[in-house]
Amino acid sequence: MGGDYAPANAVLGAVEAANENSGIDLFLVGKEKAILQVLNENKISFDKQKIINADEVIEMSDSPTSALKTKPNSSIVIGAKLVKDKQADAFVSAGNTGAMMAASTLIMGRLKGCSRPTIGATFPTAKDTFCLVYDVGASVDCKPSHLYEYALMGSIFVKEIFGIQKPTVGLLSVGEEETKGNEVTFATHKLLKESHLNFVGNVEGRDILKGTTDIVVCDGFVGNIILKFAESFMGTLKSTLKSYAEKGIMNKLKALVTKITLKGALKKFDYQTYGGVPLLGVNGISIIGHGSSSALAIKNMVLRAKEMHDKNLIQKFEESLKAYAESK
Amino acid sequence: MGGDYAPANAVLGAVEAANENSGIDLFLVGKEKAILQVLNENKISFDKQKIINADEVIEMSDSPTSALKTKPNSSIVIGAKLVKDKQADAFVSAGNTGAMMAASTLIMGRLKGCSRPTIGATFPTAKDTFCLVYDVGASVDCKPSHLYEYALMGSIFVKEIFGIQKPTVGLLSVGEEETKGNEVTFATHKLLKESHLNFVGNVEGRDILKGTTDIVVCDGFVGNIILKFAESFMGTLKSTLKSYAEKGIMNKLKALVTKITLKGALKKFDYQTYGGVPLLGVNGISIIGHGSSSALAIKNMVLRAKEMHDKNLIQKFEESLKAYAESK
Repeated sequence: MGGDYAPANAVLGAVEAANENSGIDLFLVGKEKAILQVLNENKISFDKQKIINADEVIEMSDSPTSALKTKPNSSIVIGAKLVKDKQADAFVSAGNTGAMMAASTLIMGRLKGCSRPTIGATFPTAKDTFCLVYDVGASVDCKPSHLYEYALMGSIFVKEIFGIQKPTVGLLSVGEEETKGNEVTFATHKLLKESHLNFVGNVEGRDILKGTTDIVVCDGFVGNIILKFAESFMGTLKSTLKSYAEKGIMNKLKALVTKITLKGALKKFDYQTYGGVPLLGVNGISIIGHGSSSALAIKNMVLRAKEMHDKNLIQKFEESLKAYAESK
Repeated sequence: MGGDYAPANAVLGAVEAANENSGIDLFLVGKEKAILQVLNENKISFDKQKIINADEVIEMSDSPTSALKTKPNSSIVIGAKLVKDKQADAFVSAGNTGAMMAASTLIMGRLKGCSRPTIGATFPTAKDTFCLVYDVGASVDCKPSHLYEYALMGSIFVKEIFGIQKPTVGLLSVGEEETKGNEVTFATHKLLKESHLNFVGNVEGRDILKGTTDIVVCDGFVGNIILKFAESFMGTLKSTLKSYAEKGIMNKLKALVTKITLKGALKKFDYQTYGGVPLLGVNGISIIGHGSSSALAIKNMVLRAKEMHDKNLIQKFEESLKAYAESK
């Protein structure tokens, strides 16, 4: 029931994923009537037993943690419980991000050795690679050991999902030199340098889009601000082009060509392609999508969840976190 | 002698500013020979008495604070001293930013009541206004009172220079609600709310380019990362267009039109237009430019320095800071 186009996009995307990968055993969690309507309207046959009714809806405006208590019959709470109770292997939603994080953390529980779960963002780069930035909003105040855990889990994720054997890790700071930064980055730098991770040192704001490293770690305060800043860039470009087009017919033509060209050239900047991002560090697969997720985004999220399951990612996170906790 | 194109761009830009505004009494500080060469090559007549020889050059790679001691005859040290000794009213440079900040702070001194000087960045917005972000690199760890001082000085600067009577101030955080953020933003929110400033509340990363407020305050760690991230966006766009153009003749044509269109449409995103940014909170006018400043950027920085002087900005900063310090 989450997201701006629920339940239509969620149902259509998830069904498409299940059609594409027969290894997916799909449950649809939400208002049964609404789900059935989408299925009927789109002439999709779906086993009714696998529709799990959830009468309540956590709205985007609801306070995450209190909503878990006041709306126990919401799709977010019920979905997280399915994973907790081992009835499902993964949970995917485009609903209230805070509620998804809270439900996954509190209901599924944290992995042993994980102090703080983290949510990342996938940035396309000038090198045609991806840069994954952790954390972008789960934690606003991070200790060096939290940032270390992000680097650890991020490295496993990038290795397994993107097939990069030794993903490079950068620590976001205000200068490349080890001496540039604040108290938290100094201590984190030391931790990362002494680790087995492929740490290349401090990176700066410009390195994310340049693609200097596969992974960039920062606290959720900085990461969230950068993510939202980046998301607003396209909107600004669009409105700038619009006002440019209003200044005469030649401008209008040029703006039109530009719009078409950018749409093609910047396809990789469209987050729908990678869907959503998993919350790392919880005891189960939980993938959180953008509120405006398309059916394609939802489909890719479901396929990603399946891939994470097939590759045993949760177990791999747990083993690494345990080894780190024991080494401390 | 600062910047990638020194001393040519500095000399040409500054002379042009002095030609445009007869109220400017220009001194050129740097290697006399190099300055004379630029003047001769461009057939500019300039009073030799106003060339102040500075034999040493602080390089971009020099450590800011130690360079002040090891290179006392650098243009940056001598320029700051001219202001300190009241022989000049303002100092403008495109040299090593850290060294400019250190020289201005240590030699000119801080204004009474200013705990930390701050350097801002000018972001163009979708509303065709500007958003000034303070701080973007002077301080990596800020206390709430520092952020308050930034808002105070930023408000005066925007009022006097952009003619906005009651500039709006936003506090950069991870959500609009007062309860979203970290310990520093909670305390800063309270300070700003109780002040006489036109504080509108928390703003998010997306609000900078949207132009939600005239001023955004954040600590220098976050501000510097956003600034460098933003600066890298254009480069990424360019390289993305380039690889798009390589995929066939139609793509090449479309990319060409796009490049021309964006150049026209995004003129406001060209920092050369506003030149550099002043270091606020020091006892004198100090304007710091980008290392790659063009002559136009230098010219605009000199004109801005003159404007700040004519409008008595240093005195206005001092009065406000004093009133705030006394109210604490």
